[in-house]
Amino acid sequence: MMIVMKSNVEEKEVEKIKRKMESLGCEIHESIGANYHLLGLVGDTSRIDPSQIQANRNVEKLIFIQEPYKKANRLFCPEGSVIEVRDKKIGGNKFSVIAGPCSVESEEQIISIAEDIKESGASFLRGGAFKPRTSPYSFQGLREEGLEFLKAAREKTGLPIVTELMSPDKIEQFVEDVDVIQIGARNMQNFDLLKEVGKTQKPVLLKRGMSATIEELLMAAEYIMSEGNEEVILCERGIRTFEKYTRNTLDLSAIPVIKKKSHLPVIVDPSHAGGLWWLVEPMAKAALAVGADGIMVEVHNDPANAKCDGQQSIKPERFKSLMDILKRMAEIENKEI
Amino acid sequence: MMIVMKSNVEEKEVEKIKRKMESLGCEIHESIGANYHLLGLVGDTSRIDPSQIQANRNVEKLIFIQEPYKKANRLFCPEGSVIEVRDKKIGGNKFSVIAGPCSVESEEQIISIAEDIKESGASFLRGGAFKPRTSPYSFQGLREEGLEFLKAAREKTGLPIVTELMSPDKIEQFVEDVDVIQIGARNMQNFDLLKEVGKTQKPVLLKRGMSATIEELLMAAEYIMSEGNEEVILCERGIRTFEKYTRNTLDLSAIPVIKKKSHLPVIVDPSHAGGLWWLVEPMAKAALAVGADGIMVEVHNDPANAKCDGQQSIKPERFKSLMDILKRMAEIENKEI
Amino acid sequence: MMIVMKSNVEEKEVEKIKRKMESLGCEIHESIGANYHLLGLVGDTSRIDPSQIQANRNVEKLIFIQEPYKKANRLFCPEGSVIEVRDKKIGGNKFSVIAGPCSVESEEQIISIAEDIKESGASFLRGGAFKPRTSPYSFQGLREEGLEFLKAAREKTGLPIVTELMSPDKIEQFVEDVDVIQIGARNMQNFDLLKEVGKTQKPVLLKRGMSATIEELLMAAEYIMSEGNEEVILCERGIRTFEKYTRNTLDLSAIPVIKKKSHLPVIVDPSHAGGLWWLVEPMAKAALAVGADGIMVEVHNDPANAKCDGQQSIKPERFKSLMDILKRMAEIENKEI
Amino acid sequence: MMIVMKSNVEEKEVEKIKRKMESLGCEIHESIGANYHLLGLVGDTSRIDPSQIQANRNVEKLIFIQEPYKKANRLFCPEGSVIEVRDKKIGGNKFSVIAGPCSVESEEQIISIAEDIKESGASFLRGGAFKPRTSPYSFQGLREEGLEFLKAAREKTGLPIVTELMSPDKIEQFVEDVDVIQIGARNMQNFDLLKEVGKTQKPVLLKRGMSATIEELLMAAEYIMSEGNEEVILCERGIRTFEKYTRNTLDLSAIPVIKKKSHLPVIVDPSHAGGLWWLVEPMAKAALAVGADGIMVEVHNDPANAKCDGQQSIKPERFKSLMDILKRMAEIENKEI
Repeated sequence: MMIVMKSNVEEKEVEKIKRKMESLGCEIHESIGANYHLLGLVGDTSRIDPSQIQANRNVEKLIFIQEPYKKANRLFCPEGSVIEVRDKKIGGNKFSVIAGPCSVESEEQIISIAEDIKESGASFLRGGAFKPRTSPYSFQGLREEGLEFLKAAREKTGLPIVTELMSPDKIEQFVEDVDVIQIGARNMQNFDLLKEVGKTQKPVLLKRGMSATIEELLMAAEYIMSEGNEEVILCERGIRTFEKYTRNTLDLSAIPVIKKKSHLPVIVDPSHAGGLWWLVEPMAKAALAVGADGIMVEVHNDPANAKCDGQQSIKPERFKSLMDILKRMAEIENKEI
Repeated sequence: MMIVMKSNVEEKEVEKIKRKMESLGCEIHESIGANYHLLGLVGDTSRIDPSQIQANRNVEKLIFIQEPYKKANRLFCPEGSVIEVRDKKIGGNKFSVIAGPCSVESEEQIISIAEDIKESGASFLRGGAFKPRTSPYSFQGLREEGLEFLKAAREKTGLPIVTELMSPDKIEQFVEDVDVIQIGARNMQNFDLLKEVGKTQKPVLLKRGMSATIEELLMAAEYIMSEGNEEVILCERGIRTFEKYTRNTLDLSAIPVIKKKSHLPVIVDPSHAGGLWWLVEPMAKAALAVGADGIMVEVHNDPANAKCDGQQSIKPERFKSLMDILKRMAEIENKEI
Repeated sequence: MMIVMKSNVEEKEVEKIKRKMESLGCEIHESIGANYHLLGLVGDTSRIDPSQIQANRNVEKLIFIQEPYKKANRLFCPEGSVIEVRDKKIGGNKFSVIAGPCSVESEEQIISIAEDIKESGASFLRGGAFKPRTSPYSFQGLREEGLEFLKAAREKTGLPIVTELMSPDKIEQFVEDVDVIQIGARNMQNFDLLKEVGKTQKPVLLKRGMSATIEELLMAAEYIMSEGNEEVILCERGIRTFEKYTRNTLDLSAIPVIKKKSHLPVIVDPSHAGGLWWLVEPMAKAALAVGADGIMVEVHNDPANAKCDGQQSIKPERFKSLMDILKRMAEIENKEI
Repeated sequence: MMIVMKSNVEEKEVEKIKRKMESLGCEIHESIGANYHLLGLVGDTSRIDPSQIQANRNVEKLIFIQEPYKKANRLFCPEGSVIEVRDKKIGGNKFSVIAGPCSVESEEQIISIAEDIKESGASFLRGGAFKPRTSPYSFQGLREEGLEFLKAAREKTGLPIVTELMSPDKIEQFVEDVDVIQIGARNMQNFDLLKEVGKTQKPVLLKRGMSATIEELLMAAEYIMSEGNEEVILCERGIRTFEKYTRNTLDLSAIPVIKKKSHLPVIVDPSHAGGLWWLVEPMAKAALAVGADGIMVEVHNDPANAKCDGQQSIKPERFKSLMDILKRMAEIENKEI
């Protein structure tokens, strides 16, 4: 951390700050130029709260050198983490495909889709039981019943299930029933929920908030990891920008950036990002091309009658042809699907 | 709602959609131009899920005419709502000032600040007991103890207290202890939390999410109201933009827009928006000038040693001079402070 | 176009608008629901200025059905345009690679890079002679001398040259000297410049402005085309968002969207988007995967001593290995490099 | 400037950079921590091109301490600049009101509006003669004829005239005819145009680009000032964000920020920002409250028949009542209108 003092600050004020920083265990490197006065802090700065320094009226600004996350940092596991879920892996040279409907609608529906996607090569089944909807008047999911149907589909196909947890009070049931707990974009900074899943040992799929920076995503992962659960999979699903033709703007450059900053696997959700079914295929291919560890895709047997987000779902046949091309591309990238 | 069909869609496909819409109780007005084919839906469209229509591959796009919120709509209460909290009011010709520290740090601190702000004319005391922090390693608030200190400050000064609820499991205690339950920006779409506060009769201060549109803010209010609690106060606190000199960009035009669309009172938080103490005064004045029903301001007796967000807090003396100028401005606006 | 009238508007005011629209040649389809009153305009609405209607205080809002661009519209050339530049083509089943340094620095430099990229398979040479720089104190390009060096490099390698025009007063020289005139992102809405290049018959490479919507990009193309020049190539180069790790956020979903809306070829600039050399390779591959017609990449023999933007340039060797992988990917896409 | 080296960089590579920086006249302060290695540059860093350093593969990142603008910097004129235009002033304790129609439509129109706004207390007349329009098919302004009408209105009322210059080839005429040359938001980084107006001695009203940071706005001013023209007035007119209810989001916090960073006067355009006439009054008042040096407001005698942007224009009567309230507010701020 580097403190930029205001010009013309009295020497005794500078001394006060220096003493305070030293009392917190830092060594100070002072540097005075024609137009500035810097205090570089050397040592463990993790005990220093930046806002306290910024609150000092003699401080012009504060410059951060080190990353604020520790366990999510690439340095923590330079070779990259691989998360194991039942007999499947996410990370490493694997390109994992998670597929399924936006929401679970019936036992037949979810089993039928699960069988279709499995045949095409998907590794995980997704499906919403508890649904975060913008409107209180929209379908809110089948809830507990939806979980049961997901379990039936897993039973039938062997595919591990991924589904969203919205509230801490369901956590025990999720630990019992599901294979990967999904934290939705809108809850990325629901810190109480993050802490709760951090106390479990279940893999967590953490979606980037619509307006979250990459650093904030990694800090949200850090919340989970700091509680003891290091099985975190990140997911880029589009950020909010001024462009409104697509629902959100898929930030694919975030993938190589996250790979550089963190050891955690990161996947892409091309369905929610654009909100348009005909964007799913090109963006899924691009996700593989930029180095993502997988994708999460919405597949529905009858999009026009889906209970939610049918406009962004592809049909099983289209999913199959997407998988075929992904497999060819994966070879070039030396990845396995 | 208006359905724009793709050009060259077969007549039988158009018929299918028409039949479906009619089965949901709508009358259809068809309009065919040289380059388009429109189906206007007349009647109660609230039972129609837009994503189902958008999922139809023959539909080009869907155009919304009516607002998706009902109870939050201005039409629901054209004269504007006034929320009563103990002997205070928010809304109408009142300009309400909520002030206090970012977080409660000790009983002496909160009582001392409460006394100062009361003397300067504030109507409500704010202070965080449970704190949402970006980093798991930052101070997370005094929690239950903080609530006790807030109550002591209320006891001493008579100021109603406003504090943030982060998790449904504390809701009973909040109903018991606090006067206005705050839902933070990061939880604006934590729908389970919204439903829970919707089941109480406590006034709720709902902060706009950093990347929430005005419509989404009103839909979040609708979540609370649809459960039965109509005592909602909205709060603009800055949105996330590309400009990084300020922490967020305070969207003051949102105030007149919200006033036009909704009957709910709306206040402004100039402290969190900019994240800089010297922006608080001008932005607070601007909030009054654009017609907000109040402000929420961070005041701290010793910002440089505040446990959080000291850089955006003003001192009690500065708060006093701000209140003096706000009172003069309020006269021009025919508002009472 | 669809006019949404305010509720409770007097009949005579509605009549006034209807008469006015009819006088402009439109037929009116009126539709009255419980909560709204719509006037659908059927016929040629291109002579109607939307802002005039919006200015009417009885109008709630205006809804656009048709696209505002004509010559840039996909309907104008459903099979997609192919632009010919000397013996090269952009569009169709061709994936065109434009490469070269950010700015031309010397004759030796540009010739050496041109030879390198040609050997690796690039089809066009880029290089800035006139440079738009954020600071007036930065290197502004070699200007006329830079053009001469580019011509020398074309002479040597046969590669057509692409370079940026910043001001209308150089247009004759550009028409004479260069093969593709580039309009930079900052000038995307410099309408006088657009009109000028529209009067020539030179292919124009039009970069999307940092905060331009896809529709605005197409309207900028329309400016050029409406003057008679239909040889326009679009270029996505990143949009401005809240995420600051990358310089801009490359909006790759824009590619399939543009392909759907317009017949013009569209390429991607992965160098300027991220502003980081190690992002060039993954984003270039992703550009191919989403269906772009090519890329524009900065290649420099000595980035650490480049006169501008060295941090986003890759070296010739790295460019070669990128081309190798692009060629393998292009096969899957049935494209030629 | 502060260079953050990558960890594990070889000593000889660090030495190379140090030698290079010293050769450019800087002294080096080296600081090595457990996890980082910093090189602080002391001295005149203006000759160093940041992108060259960033291009060095051993450099992690570069941190800027000093502002990149010089003549626009507050330090250049700590007491704040006051720009004189004929007998009027902008800056200091003056709140200047510039008013008039979006575009000049006829001699009668512009004279009539000029007389109205003068009577209400405006100091300057605005009106577009050359219009930047998103669509090539929209009205492009009366051009030279419009300038003549503006001059006639000035003749009649004595109000100095402000109008937009779009292309360098009209600059002589503008210097001859107008009092303040406006550079539109879309041309804020049309560097050739900035240089041209920089060579004149006419006051320039420079509008912030829709996606320009405050720093980029000041760098655009620096372009003009570096050519010798220091008479620059800045104008905040809304930035592009995800919120689409308003055309742009007026960034009022930019005003106090600009006041802190620069000595140049800064005004606000509440008409273009929101694009809605009923937002003009509250946002104009807010502009005064945050400390702007004035406003630029669109006033039209017949908005519903205006040739452009009628939806954001207010009528002369409404302008009068706005002026009345602004005058009362100005007293509190110790400003003159």
